[in-house]
Amino acid sequence: MTRLPLSPTARSTVRRGKDRATSERTDLDEVLDAGVICHLGVVVNGAPVVLPTCYGWEDNTLYVHGSTGASTLRTAIAGAEVSVAITLLDGIVYARSVFHHSANYRSAVVHGRARLVQEPDEKLHALEVITEHVAPGSWDYTRRPTQKELAGTSVLALELTEASVKIRRGPPGDDEADVTDGSCWAGVLPVRQVWGEPEPCPLLPPNATAAPEHVRGRS
Amino acid sequence: MTRLPLSPTARSTVRRGKDRATSERTDLDEVLDAGVICHLGVVVNGAPVVLPTCYGWEDNTLYVHGSTGASTLRTAIAGAEVSVAITLLDGIVYARSVFHHSANYRSAVVHGRARLVQEPDEKLHALEVITEHVAPGSWDYTRRPTQKELAGTSVLALELTEASVKIRRGPPGDDEADVTDGSCWAGVLPVRQVWGEPEPCPLLPPNATAAPEHVRGRS
Repeated sequence: MTRLPLSPTARSTVRRGKDRATSERTDLDEVLDAGVICHLGVVVNGAPVVLPTCYGWEDNTLYVHGSTGASTLRTAIAGAEVSVAITLLDGIVYARSVFHHSANYRSAVVHGRARLVQEPDEKLHALEVITEHVAPGSWDYTRRPTQKELAGTSVLALELTEASVKIRRGPPGDDEADVTDGSCWAGVLPVRQVWGEPEPCPLLPPNATAAPEHVRGRS
Repeated sequence: MTRLPLSPTARSTVRRGKDRATSERTDLDEVLDAGVICHLGVVVNGAPVVLPTCYGWEDNTLYVHGSTGASTLRTAIAGAEVSVAITLLDGIVYARSVFHHSANYRSAVVHGRARLVQEPDEKLHALEVITEHVAPGSWDYTRRPTQKELAGTSVLALELTEASVKIRRGPPGDDEADVTDGSCWAGVLPVRQVWGEPEPCPLLPPNATAAPEHVRGRS
């Protein structure tokens, strides 16, 4: 499917740190691919509520899911606006002054009205997309959802068209006088997420604790 | 200072996944200590906006800062309600069924009205708290803010009293039939953030590129 270009609106146009803004769809894709958790913002009784949740995405659509009983999700379902942020911390920027300290990061904020996915085929497909994003390989490896499990799950879809992407990379942006002074170290301390050793479920048969390749070899 | 107990209100009382909810103040402190980035939710023109930003905290107060020119922050300053989420992803939970796939995580969501910090001494102290949280050791090592830099920075304070903390640890919670079936591996793939090697700023004098201990030895 053709990926829609980003269509910035007033709220998705980055005003602060314009030099960090990007309107390239490939940058959005990179952030979406690298994240596991998003932060979903909804308005409940006039006040903002931010909730962490897993997501998946495909082409022009971001999917999140939750229990049908979750009141915050129900509110979002009711045609309300949502905001979804995905943020990857890449490093701490140690500047020569407190003021220029910063973080290297890649972030995307998507705005729009969440659509409740009701058509059964799309709902099942959306759950596959979320599962394969969070736990690649699990859709084919594990038991698929039953009708009862499907009924207990809400899936929301959000179009990936109104989005702002910000990326900060590289060394600190210090004042010239502080650079000339030369008495302070400055630079970046990178940070990254690494996978550990798989921890087998204690209920596995004793001779079946070795994790399969899609878990053990996750990149 | 005595740390206030958490005082759950309707919106900070966890309804879904009650078994993952904790009302221990020490759990909130653990999440706040471990995070670097928070997601700040505000309502702008009736719609939610979620923004990633750095934070710091001390006793009963969470501090975030931003440029005085940032419109989203100005809106939040105007006495409006905010929601701040801090989330730590600890692992992917590979269950025997798609439905029971999950994530191990520690998360805190704080609600309240943000207070603009205007008193100069508190503002300077808040910036120290944020700096020492994001880059421990930098407050004493680097140049302190000038009056002009202080004037260009807004600091918001949020009381840590209305907060919900959720923690999921441990193996998947599979259905008994899937456990008995025994054909699927199940377990947790842990994930953690690790610091890399410090990357010196290219503008450092060639003989002064070794990072100081507070950067190099960051735990």
